[in-house]
Amino acid sequence: MARYAHVPGPTIRRLSLYLRELEGLLAEGRETVSSKQLGQALRVTDAQVRKDLAYFGQLGRPGVGYPVDPLIREVRGILGTDRLWPAVLVGAGNLGRALAAYRGFARRGFEIVAVFDSDPAVVGQGLGTAGELTVLPMSQLPQVVRSGDIRIGIIAVPAPAAQSVAEQMLDAGIRALLNFAPAGLDVPPRVPVVSADLAIHLEQLAFQVAELAP
Amino acid sequence: MARYAHVPGPTIRRLSLYLRELEGLLAEGRETVSSKQLGQALRVTDAQVRKDLAYFGQLGRPGVGYPVDPLIREVRGILGTDRLWPAVLVGAGNLGRALAAYRGFARRGFEIVAVFDSDPAVVGQGLGTAGELTVLPMSQLPQVVRSGDIRIGIIAVPAPAAQSVAEQMLDAGIRALLNFAPAGLDVPPRVPVVSADLAIHLEQLAFQVAELAP
Repeated sequence: MARYAHVPGPTIRRLSLYLRELEGLLAEGRETVSSKQLGQALRVTDAQVRKDLAYFGQLGRPGVGYPVDPLIREVRGILGTDRLWPAVLVGAGNLGRALAAYRGFARRGFEIVAVFDSDPAVVGQGLGTAGELTVLPMSQLPQVVRSGDIRIGIIAVPAPAAQSVAEQMLDAGIRALLNFAPAGLDVPPRVPVVSADLAIHLEQLAFQVAELAP
Repeated sequence: MARYAHVPGPTIRRLSLYLRELEGLLAEGRETVSSKQLGQALRVTDAQVRKDLAYFGQLGRPGVGYPVDPLIREVRGILGTDRLWPAVLVGAGNLGRALAAYRGFARRGFEIVAVFDSDPAVVGQGLGTAGELTVLPMSQLPQVVRSGDIRIGIIAVPAPAAQSVAEQMLDAGIRALLNFAPAGLDVPPRVPVVSADLAIHLEQLAFQVAELAP
């Protein structure tokens, strides 16, 4: 049933970067953009930009370029961020609290509708930008997921707890995971997992800094 | 002066993933690992694993495999996470607070030594795992960076403030940036920037969820 199974992964990943650039251009009041400009922003060739966007139809006009606002809507539709996906979050520590308050989730189509924690000491506490969420016990996870038809689970627990939380989420009916724990997850191949492991970003930065002259 | 300018970027990125896998094996008490096993964990071929690691010398032994603990130390040395890099963080909101308390930084070789914010209302507040850091005013950034010879700046401010914060950091002597703001940074090419933009993870997850059958 996949709509874009024929589109290469790197193209899909670049869509996020095109979108970021397009949103910046829109904020500046720009109406069109050339493949050359988009390419320079991403450090790819203009031919690559045209090839990437051609997977999704005739989005630009030769000699005119791509219309910024329609292209933003098109890319959001492709990425699936043009609708709101309800999500549950497990882990009400510092990171979980930051995530519950992070406005960028809603802007990217995600709404954290419930937060869970296994620690009885934090269950019942208020969370979220306006304290509008209350931490629920793990025992309520299956019921909340089923009654809300929720597909996305966000894992913000320490590494040793991540696998068990992932399994509880999948048992409850969650179909895709966003994993903030610095741990790999052993889940069936049909389950999309996006790892937001900070450690990887940090290591890549350490490498680049170590490569600089002293 | 780069030590590993000849090593392809994807190989460097896979080093983080090998390291994650190796640390898991070490925790299980394993002493050696084959290229086949490492390859399966990362979904690459065993030939690719051998090619990746061969850039850094003769690290394994044919028929025996790679020794887990020495390989971990080797990879950490390559990545530069075997030493502690002091870093400053700007932005003491929810995300900045989560980052200041995030123990994974130290484990990956980063130590947040000072936190800054432009909001006078939060300057002077305690932060960190044990409230051991105090939020400093932006005016003290140059002095702290210079006196501590600090090279790494972590940006945890809202998107509209990110570019200005990046410029203030570079003016103060910071040489590499870890950017958590959902905004691109316009900085000189010599400055390494690692983007930890949550929005990109979210969009990629949205895409994969949208690709699932309803």
